Amino acid sequence: MSEKKIPYKIYLSEDEMPRTWYNLRADMKNKPAPLLDPGTGKPMTAEQLEAVFCKELVAQELDNDTAHFEIPQEIRDFYKMYRPSPLVRAYCLEEKLQTPAKIYYKFEGNNTSGSHKLNSAIAQAYYAKCQGLKGVTTETGAGQWGTALSMACGYLGLDCRVFMVKCSYEQKPFRREVMKVYGSSVTPSPSETTNVGRKILAEFPGTTGSLGCAISEAVETAVSTPGYRYVLGSVLNQVMLHQSIIGMESKIAMDKYGVKPDVIIGCAGGGSNLGGLIAPFMGEKLRGEADYRFIAVEPASCPSFTRGKFAYDFCDTGMVCPLAKMYTLGSGFMPSADHAGGLRFHGMSSTLSQLYADGYMEAVSVNQTDVFAAAEDFARVEGILPAPESAHAILAAVNEAKRCRETGEEKTILFGLTGTGYFDLVAYEKYHNGEMKSVIPSDEDIARSLAQLPQVK
Amino acid sequence: MSEKKIPYKIYLSEDEMPRTWYNLRADMKNKPAPLLDPGTGKPMTAEQLEAVFCKELVAQELDNDTAHFEIPQEIRDFYKMYRPSPLVRAYCLEEKLQTPAKIYYKFEGNNTSGSHKLNSAIAQAYYAKCQGLKGVTTETGAGQWGTALSMACGYLGLDCRVFMVKCSYEQKPFRREVMKVYGSSVTPSPSETTNVGRKILAEFPGTTGSLGCAISEAVETAVSTPGYRYVLGSVLNQVMLHQSIIGMESKIAMDKYGVKPDVIIGCAGGGSNLGGLIAPFMGEKLRGEADYRFIAVEPASCPSFTRGKFAYDFCDTGMVCPLAKMYTLGSGFMPSADHAGGLRFHGMSSTLSQLYADGYMEAVSVNQTDVFAAAEDFARVEGILPAPESAHAILAAVNEAKRCRETGEEKTILFGLTGTGYFDLVAYEKYHNGEMKSVIPSDEDIARSLAQLPQVK
Repeated sequence: MSEKKIPYKIYLSEDEMPRTWYNLRADMKNKPAPLLDPGTGKPMTAEQLEAVFCKELVAQELDNDTAHFEIPQEIRDFYKMYRPSPLVRAYCLEEKLQTPAKIYYKFEGNNTSGSHKLNSAIAQAYYAKCQGLKGVTTETGAGQWGTALSMACGYLGLDCRVFMVKCSYEQKPFRREVMKVYGSSVTPSPSETTNVGRKILAEFPGTTGSLGCAISEAVETAVSTPGYRYVLGSVLNQVMLHQSIIGMESKIAMDKYGVKPDVIIGCAGGGSNLGGLIAPFMGEKLRGEADYRFIAVEPASCPSFTRGKFAYDFCDTGMVCPLAKMYTLGSGFMPSADHAGGLRFHGMSSTLSQLYADGYMEAVSVNQTDVFAAAEDFARVEGILPAPESAHAILAAVNEAKRCRETGEEKTILFGLTGTGYFDLVAYEKYHNGEMKSVIPSDEDIARSLAQLPQVK
Repeated sequence: MSEKKIPYKIYLSEDEMPRTWYNLRADMKNKPAPLLDPGTGKPMTAEQLEAVFCKELVAQELDNDTAHFEIPQEIRDFYKMYRPSPLVRAYCLEEKLQTPAKIYYKFEGNNTSGSHKLNSAIAQAYYAKCQGLKGVTTETGAGQWGTALSMACGYLGLDCRVFMVKCSYEQKPFRREVMKVYGSSVTPSPSETTNVGRKILAEFPGTTGSLGCAISEAVETAVSTPGYRYVLGSVLNQVMLHQSIIGMESKIAMDKYGVKPDVIIGCAGGGSNLGGLIAPFMGEKLRGEADYRFIAVEPASCPSFTRGKFAYDFCDTGMVCPLAKMYTLGSGFMPSADHAGGLRFHGMSSTLSQLYADGYMEAVSVNQTDVFAAAEDFARVEGILPAPESAHAILAAVNEAKRCRETGEEKTILFGLTGTGYFDLVAYEKYHNGEMKSVIPSDEDIARSLAQLPQVK
């Protein structure tokens, strides 16, 4: 089909917006492996999971068969406040690169949380509310997920208790304050409010916390407080499901203009954005209806796809959560302190891991200083100051477009621009001042961490 | 006309976007008074102004007759990167307020500079580039205007030298870093790089600077550096002209759905946002084609419309700029140190001042703590974290909607949401911690400052 004249930004009308989320697992021959109970080695039952998570979300988590889930009206109304997100044709970037490639990006940063995380936050808060719960607990590192969840809970009038890694709590006061604007309580972790927090504080009095510890505190608070459940912003199947809105909007917008992407690129930490962006396209590939290349981009400092192992592992450093089969660097793996952006999770979504293992996706790792250089170039030509995470995808897209310049191929590239970098300016400053390093873990570091993988019966 | 079903957000298509700026002055019977040379008391000539400002911008500044200026293609292309801005129907806010009023806001915050300032920044940078200049200079306080200009110059490859009030430079490192991402040089003011800076530093060694001083340094640098001119982000007629894009898009969007606002509300500092938002509506009122109420909202701590005097005054504290006839509190007026948001300029656009003097507009002043309360309520129901400046308009719109609840009137309210508050979280934190005061200058303070108004021959 010949292309219609493409505007700089494609916004769907409300009528064109998706009414369902798409569950990629329904079209996978090899389903993602189930979560296992670390004690028994057996698959976690719905009942076990419902002690921690909301009932409806557990049902979504375990459903490998239903392809389409209707998006409840109340969530669709909330989506209308900040969605559809624009699908942008990067005319200025193309011109700067002098490439015959056509570059598109789906921009998820136009909301106060500054990222795509809000897509799942509102869904999870909604189901918690439907269940008659009083509130939810969660952890947050840099604060993107915590902010998104705070916005969703503020809107629905649900209590929200966020455990924020102490060093971020102190170094990122802005994120903390945004959460408070939306009415959340924000507790620096480790804290005196939980058993696990008190234990860690007794053992390591001066600790500034870790994501693993914050998860443990949030889970403990959820299971020990009547009317509360725990929610998580990435990795889980349910999160991939909610994030499919990104890919579905992208596909509807591209179809409308007769555009078919050749390559689809996303940054990958736990996989929520990548999984959402590729969902409907991957569905077509799985069903043999169309072919696309998919590229996951991860930091060289935390390379779970490219240097990790496909095995069962704990989702958290504290080893209290169920085991998931995924590409992992070992739950004890910690990216270097010089690593600036997000994407620091040791593992990867089980769904994406299975697709990668089955050869449906590629993965590349990129160096941090190159990522910031790409971010800055992008900001100057396209206007948007990207989050460092998103800039991983920018760099890979730019590299792909440069290859097209060499070969003369007119490829169509779609990448996910997950968010803005307004709260990452300390990292940008480091980059400007030449203080940023690219850090690559040694083979020994990774082997040491992988040696701790749990034995699964 | 009956209303069509109104979506949450109205985005114009590229074809529907305005191709001209509208010059309100063309329809004013009483034109705004001309800028005067403070030495001679005579109107500034184009030649005099061109020593400081770009030639084409001077022509726009002095033109009281041309109603429509074509927007150059290059600027329209840049606008397409972040415009059209959404016209939002505030369904959630209406429901929260249980008001029969219909509330709309034009949201200008979806770009990295975080505000409407970019609309004029790109225009001014473009004309500087057309004139073959190497670069431009400017001052910035909190950094919104400096960021916008940096983005525009980064895009056009023009050098940009920003003098940033020293206390902001130190306290708002994030804004400073954003400007650097876009390639600007940012100098804390007062600095050793100018005569006026050195003089002030010698006189007041520990000073943390002021906007007036930064203006003086920026102007001195522009006139003493070959290939440079000075640019300004508010107050001037040319800025109102560029900002008319806000009102024109709003009007096209409303016309499309058969909606006519009864009341149009904007916050007012120097007047750039308010002047832009009301432009085409005020044009209709001036030509007798339609009637609207217009409300300027200013902080009680800097009440130029409501407590100032309509007189000739200096635009800057340093008394080096030309004299403008405007509502002013005196160029020596400084809002209390407890004043948190922007809108701290002592005067007001000459165009808006004339309209206010002629009875075409109303003005109200509001207290800072009420403004932050309205901002927080708004964030929770509409999602967007507003800039404190924008929240002045929110508060006035909410008050209007509450009156409709009392009277049962189904008024249509349009207000300008100029930007986001991501870089204003120190102020939000103060508000949360109960440390924020509402500060109202005494009659004596204002009288003392007004006593210093220049004598015009």
